[in-house]
Amino acid sequence: MTETHTFKYDLQAQDGRARAGVFHTPHGDIPTPIFAPVGTQATVKSLTQRHLHELDAKLILANTYHLYLRPGDDLIAELGGLHSFMGWDRPILTDSGGFQVFSLSDTRKVDEDGVTFKSHIDGSTHRFTPESSIAIQENLGADIIMAFDECANPYERDYIEQAMHRTHRWAERSKAAQTREDQALFGIVQGGVFPELREISAQHIASLDFPGNAIGGLSVGETKDEMHAMIELVNDILPQDKPRYLMGVGTPQDLVEGVRRGIDIFDCVLPTRLARHSAAMTERGRLNMMNAQYARDERPISAHCDCYTCQHYSRAYIRHLIQAKEMLAGTLLSIHNIHTLLSLARQMRKAIQAEAFDEFAYHYLANFED
Amino acid sequence: MTETHTFKYDLQAQDGRARAGVFHTPHGDIPTPIFAPVGTQATVKSLTQRHLHELDAKLILANTYHLYLRPGDDLIAELGGLHSFMGWDRPILTDSGGFQVFSLSDTRKVDEDGVTFKSHIDGSTHRFTPESSIAIQENLGADIIMAFDECANPYERDYIEQAMHRTHRWAERSKAAQTREDQALFGIVQGGVFPELREISAQHIASLDFPGNAIGGLSVGETKDEMHAMIELVNDILPQDKPRYLMGVGTPQDLVEGVRRGIDIFDCVLPTRLARHSAAMTERGRLNMMNAQYARDERPISAHCDCYTCQHYSRAYIRHLIQAKEMLAGTLLSIHNIHTLLSLARQMRKAIQAEAFDEFAYHYLANFED
Repeated sequence: MTETHTFKYDLQAQDGRARAGVFHTPHGDIPTPIFAPVGTQATVKSLTQRHLHELDAKLILANTYHLYLRPGDDLIAELGGLHSFMGWDRPILTDSGGFQVFSLSDTRKVDEDGVTFKSHIDGSTHRFTPESSIAIQENLGADIIMAFDECANPYERDYIEQAMHRTHRWAERSKAAQTREDQALFGIVQGGVFPELREISAQHIASLDFPGNAIGGLSVGETKDEMHAMIELVNDILPQDKPRYLMGVGTPQDLVEGVRRGIDIFDCVLPTRLARHSAAMTERGRLNMMNAQYARDERPISAHCDCYTCQHYSRAYIRHLIQAKEMLAGTLLSIHNIHTLLSLARQMRKAIQAEAFDEFAYHYLANFED
Repeated sequence: MTETHTFKYDLQAQDGRARAGVFHTPHGDIPTPIFAPVGTQATVKSLTQRHLHELDAKLILANTYHLYLRPGDDLIAELGGLHSFMGWDRPILTDSGGFQVFSLSDTRKVDEDGVTFKSHIDGSTHRFTPESSIAIQENLGADIIMAFDECANPYERDYIEQAMHRTHRWAERSKAAQTREDQALFGIVQGGVFPELREISAQHIASLDFPGNAIGGLSVGETKDEMHAMIELVNDILPQDKPRYLMGVGTPQDLVEGVRRGIDIFDCVLPTRLARHSAAMTERGRLNMMNAQYARDERPISAHCDCYTCQHYSRAYIRHLIQAKEMLAGTLLSIHNIHTLLSLARQMRKAIQAEAFDEFAYHYLANFED
C-alpha cells in the first residue's frame, strides 16, 4: 500500500563513545545527537509550527495514548495522518502508549496479551495490545514508531524480569503486526536497574534487527549512577549502525552524559513543563523567572542566547507576564527552553565531528551552578 | 526634555463621510481607518510581537489602569518606556485609566478632583486625577495618550450631564498637565445617548484643539441606532483635520458602520477575548470552533483568509486543540480574529480611496449570517 523505505543510519563521526550521524526518514533527515520536543496532544504546548521551524526542531514526539483517546487515531488517519493534521512537515516519532498507560491511568490490568486501562479523561475502559498499538501508530503515520512495552518499577526485580520477558514477546508481536513500510519501528530495551536483565534485554532486542533501538524504563526514579551504568551496558550490546534513543530524558546534564555514552536521540517534556512553571533553562542552570530580583532586570534570560525570546524580551518583561498570569510567558519560556536543548544537541554534534567532545562536555558541565 | 513633535493628520481621501488618512507619530505612520488590537497588560494576549508584525498591526493599545497597578509605570519608565519594555517598535495608544476604574473596581468615589478606587488585584486603595493619569501615561510613553474622563451609565441623564461637565474640566486639566511634546493627547467626547449633551461635549472638546479626538461612552449598553446617531452627530462637529477614535468598538459590523460615519480609529478586546472562548470571527459571522460539526472538517476557518492560522491549520485541528484544552487554540484564533478586523480596515481604506465605500459596505454586511 505504502512506498517501501529502507531506514538507514549514517554514522558520520565518533569521539570516544559519542556519535554523530544522520537518520534518514520519509519526512527528512534527522542529524544526531538530537533532542525531540514533545507534542503530547499533537501540539508542542503553546508553540506554532513556525516557532518550531525557527528553533530548527528536526524531530518532534507525539503520544499515542493521548491521541488515541482524543481526537482518535481514526479521525487523524481520515484527515491524512499526524503530519497533515498538525501542520508539521518534518519527522515525527510516536511512542507506543505503554508508558502513559502505566503512568497516567489509575487502574490497569496487564496480562500476556495486553493491558486494559481506564481513560484519565472520562474513566472509560480501553485495551492496548502490541497489535493495536501498532495499528494506532500506523493510523497516526509518524516516521518513527515504537514497539509496545511495559515500563515497570525499576527496583522490583522479580516483576521487572517478568515484565521484561513480556516486553520481548510484545516486541516480536509489534514487529509482526507492522504493515506499513514507511515507518521505522524501534525496539525498546527494559530491565530496570539490574545489569543482568539489561544485558539479556539488549541482546534480545538487538537480535530482532529493528532499524533503531530505544532504552526505556530509565529516568523513572533510579539514581544518575544507575542510569549511566545501564546506558553504558546496553549501548555496548546494541548495534553500532542503528540509532539509539533514550526515552523521556531529560536535563541538559542528562543529554551530555547520554551522548558521552553513545545515545543519539532524546525526548522530554521538561522544557515546556518548566516553562509553564516559570522556570528558564540556561547553560548555567535553572532560573525561577518569578523571582523579585528580575523585576527591573533589562537583560535577556541568557546573555549569549540567540533564541527569539532572548533577542526580543527582557527578564523584567517575562517576570511581568508571569506575575500578570499572561499566556505569553509560557510561550516565550518554551521557546527559550527548547532552544537551550536543541542548541546543546547541535553543539555536541559539532564537538564530536571536531573530536573535541570530552573538552566540550567538561566545560559545559563545569558552567552549571546547580 | 523630549523632542518637539507636531502631530499631523493627512486626510487623503473621502467617500461620503468615510475617510482615509495617515496620522504621523514618533513610532511610525498610522494609516486610517485602523483597528488597534488591545494589549491590556503590555501583551496582546497569547501573541508574540512577531505575530503582530506578520498581521501588520500598525497600532496597539495598552491599559494605563492595569500597568499602573502591575508592574507599575515607574518600573516601565525606568526600563525605557512601554515600547522598549514590551519589545514593540510601532505606535502605541494608552487609555487614561478612567474606563477601567469605572468598570473593574468594585468601589470607587468620584469627586471634582479625581477618583479614589480599590485595586481589583489586591483591594488596595488608589487615586487617579487628570494630572496623575497624564503623569502615568508620560511614564508609559505611548504615542497617543488620552485625557482623563468619566464613563457613566449612558441612560442616567442628570448624572451624565454632571459627569460630562466634569470630563470637560478634566480634559482641560489633562491638557495643562502634559509635559511631553512627543505624545499626542486626545480629548474624549461624552454625553451618553442624549443628542443635546453630545453636541455640547463635541463642541467643547473640539474647542480645546487636541491633535485628535475620541468618542467615549458608547458600546456600553445602548442600542446600535443610538450609537450610530451619536457618532453622526459628534462627527459633524469634530474637526475634519484631526483623527477620530471610537473607543472600545468593536465588531466587524461596528467598524463598517463607524467608518461610514467618519470614524478613523477603533480598538476592542473582542478578537482576543472571543479567541479565548473558542469563537472565530469570519466575514460571514462567528463560528463556535468547539462545535462537533468541525471535528473532521479539513477546511481552514475561512476559505479565502490569508492569515497564518488559515494558511496552516484546519478547523478539525483547532477544534481538537480546544477539546484538549491546549493553549495554542487561543493563539491561533487570536491571530485569525485580529486578522479579520485588520484586513477589514485595510479593505475599507482601499474602498474609500477608490470611492467605492458604500458598495464595499453593502456587500460586506450582506454576507453576514448573524
